[in-house]
Amino acid sequence: MNIGLDMMGGDFAPLEAVKGLQQYLSGNNGPAHLFCIGAEAQLKSLLDEHQLNHPNIHVVHAAEVIGYHEHPTKALKEKKQSSIAIGFYMLATGKIDAFISAGNTGAMLVGAMYSLKPIEGLSRPTIATVFPKLSGGTGLLLDVGLNADCKPEQLNQFAVLGSLYAKHILGIDQPKTGLMNVGEEEGKGNILAQATYPLLKENSRINFIGNIEGRDLFNDKADVMVCEGFTGNIILKMAESIYDIACQRNLQDDAYFSRFHYENYGGTPVLGVAKPVIIGHGISNAKAFMNMIRLAEKMIQTDLCGQIAGSFQA
Amino acid sequence: MNIGLDMMGGDFAPLEAVKGLQQYLSGNNGPAHLFCIGAEAQLKSLLDEHQLNHPNIHVVHAAEVIGYHEHPTKALKEKKQSSIAIGFYMLATGKIDAFISAGNTGAMLVGAMYSLKPIEGLSRPTIATVFPKLSGGTGLLLDVGLNADCKPEQLNQFAVLGSLYAKHILGIDQPKTGLMNVGEEEGKGNILAQATYPLLKENSRINFIGNIEGRDLFNDKADVMVCEGFTGNIILKMAESIYDIACQRNLQDDAYFSRFHYENYGGTPVLGVAKPVIIGHGISNAKAFMNMIRLAEKMIQTDLCGQIAGSFQA
Repeated sequence: MNIGLDMMGGDFAPLEAVKGLQQYLSGNNGPAHLFCIGAEAQLKSLLDEHQLNHPNIHVVHAAEVIGYHEHPTKALKEKKQSSIAIGFYMLATGKIDAFISAGNTGAMLVGAMYSLKPIEGLSRPTIATVFPKLSGGTGLLLDVGLNADCKPEQLNQFAVLGSLYAKHILGIDQPKTGLMNVGEEEGKGNILAQATYPLLKENSRINFIGNIEGRDLFNDKADVMVCEGFTGNIILKMAESIYDIACQRNLQDDAYFSRFHYENYGGTPVLGVAKPVIIGHGISNAKAFMNMIRLAEKMIQTDLCGQIAGSFQA
Repeated sequence: MNIGLDMMGGDFAPLEAVKGLQQYLSGNNGPAHLFCIGAEAQLKSLLDEHQLNHPNIHVVHAAEVIGYHEHPTKALKEKKQSSIAIGFYMLATGKIDAFISAGNTGAMLVGAMYSLKPIEGLSRPTIATVFPKLSGGTGLLLDVGLNADCKPEQLNQFAVLGSLYAKHILGIDQPKTGLMNVGEEEGKGNILAQATYPLLKENSRINFIGNIEGRDLFNDKADVMVCEGFTGNIILKMAESIYDIACQRNLQDDAYFSRFHYENYGGTPVLGVAKPVIIGHGISNAKAFMNMIRLAEKMIQTDLCGQIAGSFQA
């Protein structure tokens, strides 16, 4: 199993990425091969410093870096030697089985959508985030920002993508799938939600439980929560701010609020592309990098992308 | 000043409404006249029991009640002797200057929109909610559910309504007004947000500060936060659930989280109708009723509705 890691992405890269590798390797007996993409000399010295002469670590030199504020498409086209461009090249050509970066989100999305073969029958990929449920479990919300305007059929497809993720990655059998809406009854909502409901209701590939509301994000009503990326992104950022509030109130150690810390989830998977791609938070720390590597491992082990492709071919 | 109160609306009516009256009168030297609309015999005995023989309390008999699950338009048409129908009749004919109910929300909205003269130049009324800011202040979010689908010009008008409310009721001079969106830069967002931004930017009646994101709901970036009612309603219910989470974590006494309790804000004002209308939560308790009466008082004192009408005539 070969996982590619962009060592140059994130506010604290490459140091936190190196520490993340260290955490991953120290807790793992049969680790994946890790392809560390970035400035070779800098990386080698950092890896030495952290005594990471592990046989599963392989440094791949990248002479360039795509900055946070660069235009994604332009940067990917012009910076062929950037860590992100090299990562997607390696992913597309099968040198690695998954690619992780905490760098330029736009470049990661463009790379995921245009360097990999699209999945037949799928209209648009999506990005998802996990939510800590009060009961102790986790739920999945999607789309969280890739598709600000959606058609009903796209939301219907996101429900399938989310259900497969919940089943294979979160380990939830027959995940309860809800449509994020403004009321419980069928017929409620904006035009999009009203038109989406009947599609979800008739979709035999998911376990549709009806509409859910903003108050249901943290309870067990639904495991998979579907909405367009405008609402989803606002919910995501609002949820992230709950952790910041907890910190300001000195409650960051509370057993529930601590679970809102992004580092526990590592990164955001891109769902609906042919191979595992994980996008990290700009502020990713060592634990976040470790968790992204673990998530990549799980996505490869369960062949999530293959399951998804198979589901849409059927 | 005459305020009408539907005594029959809310899960714990009329008892909690009576207790709310008591709280209001005990803390007020020059109280408003309160018209208590409901089942006369029941109300009189309850008022006696609570020693509320105050000269400012007037009971208005209503022989019927509109239930929670009744169809709003149908119920208002057929139950002319219901407390809500009588309340709107009294408001429309000037017997009262504001009307409050924790009853059927739909009936309250229909009543507000169709029994009162529309405000010229205003496309749609809106409903708003206040948000506790971490710094101690309060912000205003609108629309929170009345208009699930909106046009850019409607959001532009909501920004004006919210700014006037923030100025006159929350006491914020030149309230900073933000567009709820998925990114900071102009050009971000779904089609609606992209089309709304330039209107807000050119609107000289508001102090537009640009886009805000889900993480900005609780900070001081914007005092007035504008979005369509689909997103707004989901945000509102998510925020309400934060108080429930705090309770489950035994943090309900925390100085910040306690401010999320709906009772502190009393109810939701309908903005953009000719007279003050306030809709309470179904679970309204005494404190919520007291705060709704205080809010009605303030809306009358500041002539908020007149300010709004004047602003759109200009």
